[in-house]
Amino acid sequence: MQSFDIDKSDIQKIKQALEGPEDELQLLLEDYHASELAILFESIPLEAQKRIVHLLSVEIASQVISEMKAEAHPEDLLIDLPSEKRQEIVEELDYDDATDIISQLDKEDQHEILQDLDSEDAVHIRNLMTYAEDTAGGLMNTEVIKVDAAMTKKQAIDQIVLQSEEIEEFYTIYVVDHQDVLQGIVSLKDIIKAKSGVSIAQLVNTNFVYVKTDTDQEQVADLISQYNLTSIPVVDVNMKLMGRVTFDDVIDVLEEENTEDILKFSGVSEDEQLSGNWWDAVKSRLPWLILNLGTAFLASSVIRYFEPTVSKLVVLAGYMTIIAGMGGNAATQALAVTIRRITLSDLTDNQAYRTVLKELTVGLINGAVNGLIVCVFAYFYDDNLLLGLVIFIAMTGNLLIAGITGAGIPLFLKRVGVDPAIASSIIITTFTDVFGFLFLLGLASKLLL
Amino acid sequence: MQSFDIDKSDIQKIKQALEGPEDELQLLLEDYHASELAILFESIPLEAQKRIVHLLSVEIASQVISEMKAEAHPEDLLIDLPSEKRQEIVEELDYDDATDIISQLDKEDQHEILQDLDSEDAVHIRNLMTYAEDTAGGLMNTEVIKVDAAMTKKQAIDQIVLQSEEIEEFYTIYVVDHQDVLQGIVSLKDIIKAKSGVSIAQLVNTNFVYVKTDTDQEQVADLISQYNLTSIPVVDVNMKLMGRVTFDDVIDVLEEENTEDILKFSGVSEDEQLSGNWWDAVKSRLPWLILNLGTAFLASSVIRYFEPTVSKLVVLAGYMTIIAGMGGNAATQALAVTIRRITLSDLTDNQAYRTVLKELTVGLINGAVNGLIVCVFAYFYDDNLLLGLVIFIAMTGNLLIAGITGAGIPLFLKRVGVDPAIASSIIITTFTDVFGFLFLLGLASKLLL
Repeated sequence: MQSFDIDKSDIQKIKQALEGPEDELQLLLEDYHASELAILFESIPLEAQKRIVHLLSVEIASQVISEMKAEAHPEDLLIDLPSEKRQEIVEELDYDDATDIISQLDKEDQHEILQDLDSEDAVHIRNLMTYAEDTAGGLMNTEVIKVDAAMTKKQAIDQIVLQSEEIEEFYTIYVVDHQDVLQGIVSLKDIIKAKSGVSIAQLVNTNFVYVKTDTDQEQVADLISQYNLTSIPVVDVNMKLMGRVTFDDVIDVLEEENTEDILKFSGVSEDEQLSGNWWDAVKSRLPWLILNLGTAFLASSVIRYFEPTVSKLVVLAGYMTIIAGMGGNAATQALAVTIRRITLSDLTDNQAYRTVLKELTVGLINGAVNGLIVCVFAYFYDDNLLLGLVIFIAMTGNLLIAGITGAGIPLFLKRVGVDPAIASSIIITTFTDVFGFLFLLGLASKLLL
Repeated sequence: MQSFDIDKSDIQKIKQALEGPEDELQLLLEDYHASELAILFESIPLEAQKRIVHLLSVEIASQVISEMKAEAHPEDLLIDLPSEKRQEIVEELDYDDATDIISQLDKEDQHEILQDLDSEDAVHIRNLMTYAEDTAGGLMNTEVIKVDAAMTKKQAIDQIVLQSEEIEEFYTIYVVDHQDVLQGIVSLKDIIKAKSGVSIAQLVNTNFVYVKTDTDQEQVADLISQYNLTSIPVVDVNMKLMGRVTFDDVIDVLEEENTEDILKFSGVSEDEQLSGNWWDAVKSRLPWLILNLGTAFLASSVIRYFEPTVSKLVVLAGYMTIIAGMGGNAATQALAVTIRRITLSDLTDNQAYRTVLKELTVGLINGAVNGLIVCVFAYFYDDNLLLGLVIFIAMTGNLLIAGITGAGIPLFLKRVGVDPAIASSIIITTFTDVFGFLFLLGLASKLLL
């Protein structure tokens, strides 16, 4: 089966089938993978979701619920199911997924779900709920395949087969001592290839990467990506094995971090849910806009200072918006390239210095080219060569400032230990507004009046 | 070993050791993982890279070269090594990595490297070089673990152990018929758990996801991420198994796509290398800036049209930049949220409609709040309530336009099949500039003069 995203016509078909007889709906549902149904669930009401869940096997239903995006509120669906069905589904869920979903409910509903579970499951989930969501502890799954270093090949394989009844997918086998302290890793392949009678202690690879339960999720993602790992073990302060984070969790983290990056870059609070309602969006964006209003007053105060100049040569009003706007765009370009570079790798001092130098050069050249175009326009349209020259100098100077601030400010923030992403385009363009007006109106007041 | 990125002090230490005796350098190098040395290589000259490579085992050296970013030009290092060392390293590389690196060289150097290899390796690499870089064929590795459906458990395990001599990591075993046509997948776990005498045909899972050699890399990444796969098989038009793409390639693709997204968003050509030189940056950004200059002239022509108004009430010059600037920032916010939403999932017509409605509401509220602040300022500072009211209306109207265009334009482009990311902030802010000036100056000319 070559399968791609469920598309609009599929969704339409299922929606129609929801009106029809149950057996036809059931037959249709068999054509779809759980992750496709999860996408469908984002666009149908809760009642329809419930109806479909009742037709699915517990296994598929739990996969659908675990694949639903947080924004589609799988917890609302879960709490709304009859308690028996709900219990079966929760027991089928991986502990980390169950924890993520149950944490979204209020205390009372959490209690209702947890009391139905067998006590071991409930303890696992309550335990996971104590870790912060954006740490290795919050991401990890407590179900791992582990063997004792003292085991022989035969004992280890028996253990693995036994433990793998519970665990769908595993890529790495963890080796622990009798107190569950992590000793190293071993692959199933190496165990199988080993001669019989060999002990795990002889096969274990002790040169491995691990994280603590409180390691930040971004660092977990970086390690998995840098070392090309399918999973990374999570340990407590005593090196006791607590769980593992797998590569698929990391792909989700990467998507999440990238959303945050582009939002912060645009002056949107990183916490804004993409599909949140208008009130969430107002709360997230208004503070940034009000901050920007402050910086806009600053830029506008430059214009106010030069009001006599503008009133004597009103044609400047049209040109000043061109120069400020171009500066803002050039600064945004330099900022995007620099922020992305900082995100992907640490720059040495020398690299940082060369980055600013490069952006300064780019600003100078792009400023001169665009300045020349506007200069020629001013000469022919306004018949004023001196005005053209003032514009040329202002444009070149402003794009130079754009390059220096667009690259320099995030690099400076990074150096002093502040998140460089707060240098959003909103902040940087304040500089280009202020300097753009200052260059143009300042020069004009000296040279043209 | 809990290992994090190589840091500045490490790099300094190695640089110092490069000046000292060989054995001390070698001892120091043993502390670092290949992926850490790859990071180091980005900041030291070619001669120093060569010196270090000579001290590393072939295995580590090939890992370092395969982990180096394309921007660090591993091909320059490779072609500069003595031919024997080079041959050993290339033979140790995975075919896909070798292909990526060798493709960067000119024809002559490619020939020099390929002629030294044994003919099977050379054929594999030449074959991979025929696929476009951004397709499944370009990403895939041709080395896979595969078993014939007709094999018994015992035969299959022997085959897997044999094949795994060549392949470091494998997560899924592919099942083929005698003509290499892909039949399905099976996990090592399932083979081990099976009773002896069972044939692979009884264990094979025929419900699997695959891609063609010409499938776009973004689609490959989406499938691996959606179905949480460690690897995905790549087949030709006859379903013959050609190779596999693994999750670690996909993590790289995701990082790459995210860089492109943030660059396009900021009006930078997606092809710009983050660490390219100033000339590359000028070539990539100047066309966008010149396009923007055209739109800036458009906005400035509105001001020119109302020049008589501005010259009679010059205080408008300061306010108009505030209103246009705020509109631009609000539009960028709406655009970022909408573009990111479109990237992560397909929106139904109904969801698209509600998104525009939401952004319209957000624009109205944020516009009214900011408009009120500036209105109060104008009343007290300029002692002109009517001017304040005009500003209030212009600000509210402009942020309304910002919401509608910021959400509506990318959604419209997506609907008509155009990449919504070309609606970069540069394009959208043209609308808010034009409408900002139009609202403020138009109303002022009617009400204030």
